[in-house]
Amino acid sequence: MNATYPAAVKVDDKTSALSIRELGSFLAGGRTVTLSDRPCQRVKVARNGPDRIVDLNGDYVTGQCYVQFVRLSDRNQPFPVMFWHGGAMSGVTWETTPDGRAGWQMYFLRQGYDTYVCDAHERGRAGWSPYPDIYKDAPIFRTSNEAWSLFRFGPADGYQTDPKQRVAFNKQQFPVGYFDQFAAQFVPRWTDHAEESLTAYVEALRRTGPVILISHSQGGNFALDIVQRVPELIKALVVIEPAAAPRFTAESLAKAATVPHLFVWGDFIDDAPLWQGYRSVVDPYVTNLQNAGGCVQVFDLPREGIRGNSHVPMMDTNSDEVAGLIDGWLRELCL
Amino acid sequence: MNATYPAAVKVDDKTSALSIRELGSFLAGGRTVTLSDRPCQRVKVARNGPDRIVDLNGDYVTGQCYVQFVRLSDRNQPFPVMFWHGGAMSGVTWETTPDGRAGWQMYFLRQGYDTYVCDAHERGRAGWSPYPDIYKDAPIFRTSNEAWSLFRFGPADGYQTDPKQRVAFNKQQFPVGYFDQFAAQFVPRWTDHAEESLTAYVEALRRTGPVILISHSQGGNFALDIVQRVPELIKALVVIEPAAAPRFTAESLAKAATVPHLFVWGDFIDDAPLWQGYRSVVDPYVTNLQNAGGCVQVFDLPREGIRGNSHVPMMDTNSDEVAGLIDGWLRELCL
Repeated sequence: MNATYPAAVKVDDKTSALSIRELGSFLAGGRTVTLSDRPCQRVKVARNGPDRIVDLNGDYVTGQCYVQFVRLSDRNQPFPVMFWHGGAMSGVTWETTPDGRAGWQMYFLRQGYDTYVCDAHERGRAGWSPYPDIYKDAPIFRTSNEAWSLFRFGPADGYQTDPKQRVAFNKQQFPVGYFDQFAAQFVPRWTDHAEESLTAYVEALRRTGPVILISHSQGGNFALDIVQRVPELIKALVVIEPAAAPRFTAESLAKAATVPHLFVWGDFIDDAPLWQGYRSVVDPYVTNLQNAGGCVQVFDLPREGIRGNSHVPMMDTNSDEVAGLIDGWLRELCL
Repeated sequence: MNATYPAAVKVDDKTSALSIRELGSFLAGGRTVTLSDRPCQRVKVARNGPDRIVDLNGDYVTGQCYVQFVRLSDRNQPFPVMFWHGGAMSGVTWETTPDGRAGWQMYFLRQGYDTYVCDAHERGRAGWSPYPDIYKDAPIFRTSNEAWSLFRFGPADGYQTDPKQRVAFNKQQFPVGYFDQFAAQFVPRWTDHAEESLTAYVEALRRTGPVILISHSQGGNFALDIVQRVPELIKALVVIEPAAAPRFTAESLAKAATVPHLFVWGDFIDDAPLWQGYRSVVDPYVTNLQNAGGCVQVFDLPREGIRGNSHVPMMDTNSDEVAGLIDGWLRELCL
């Protein structure tokens, strides 16, 4: 894998300094669960240290999400941007791209927005809890093979272990030479925790106050659901390639429709039956939102003349161009 | 738990702006492992979405660590500070304290150091891999009960689920009213991955170049080991309460002794037999380093007149005072 890593992290020297008041983080949501009747283990916990008794009975805090904030000294936008990653991912999605360019967190900071980068419940720095004691099931994992087609870097049979043998779509914007650096970002996920994940995210929003929410893939599913529940905490919602549309009632749809929505779709969907299926569920929801009076915009990037984007436009070589489109849409809202 | 969360994140308004060139991250280390012969599953991966086949056979990138960097525009220190967290923890250790104060990452940024905050292999944003397929065993978890005494917040029987019933040591500096926010930071850990964790960290150091390394607990164990291997990449080593001393040869000890070491110990060790045991292993190693000609300093905080520190001085209410001691030691080295 090391052969496909960038030689060194590139530094974005061309841009001016950011003036920052504070960097930090907090955990939001969560509850205490008590386990009992598990056998104790004698474990050598620290290498070169003595064995000690590990007793897994007791209290666990479970269900929290992680929120990392950057507060500018001179923000010029009234609302911060909060980022929600997709399935099998973490907040790393929004940081440096796999090929070492500044990501969307930096982009939006430079445009004058405070940022919150989240790790959903059970992902990344949010931690996860024992199964089958607290979580019911085992997690699932993302293989590189699956990711290659799921993220629409290339055809389903285009992935090979040897980077030189991989087949990408023509004019692919994702920096496929750095795919293994991307695959190193994957984290395990559970498939039955949506409600707990939403609860933690709502708690995060209550702590931060109203935000502009930029969400990706499964994070977009969460966002479309949550905006029906707490529209007052989301000033504008950007959904990058959601994999599902939420259930709704007339009442919950009307709530969602009070918040401007922007949907963003990349290229190669015609080559990806899975994504055609996902989109066929989302497009009618867009129509429903519009019919409910919502301010809803769809950026279908190829139709805008922007070709070659994968499922992760925030990492594609034209990531700044796509971010610029989103920022332009946000500015026109005059929040 | 929510009752013991801070009402809102406090903002450190009293200090001046930081001028920052770039925030970002990278994954370091890792290798590709191929799994085969696992049965496929049909899973509803996205709520409200259709089922799809999940095939866990294929390639995984495993063994990487996560490194988040902050590059100042006007750093005034020649070497950056890299932070390594302890067992069952992640880089969150160095961010905002559980009671909402700025942590050591901010402290050292304000002193003019670039920073690298790491999540070790298998922890936090570094992700983790399937067991028993790639990892051999299941992880262990940290309970709140164990943490209460392990971090020396109070006596072994001092933890209760009800925050009001908890018994802390007298003059405890850890903000025990925010203990559940602290417990929300815990992540699972494996006990047999030391070598893979070290390999990833060495890879991180090769990417960053020489650093001042500030390490905590198990991260200190890793650091004491690694400084014997790549002393040229560590300009100074700060070890906060390591839980073990490394094995060494005359040759590897001589290598370590070329790097200045600072050991920091908190209070209440007399009340904690486990920590007396750990320290009884570390103190002779300190003597060995000194005998090998090393520049070695030990800050035993109670002996310095600083009372009440727990195992996590970077979160204690006097965290800035302890950071100041460390920074003072670093400045006297004239690196």
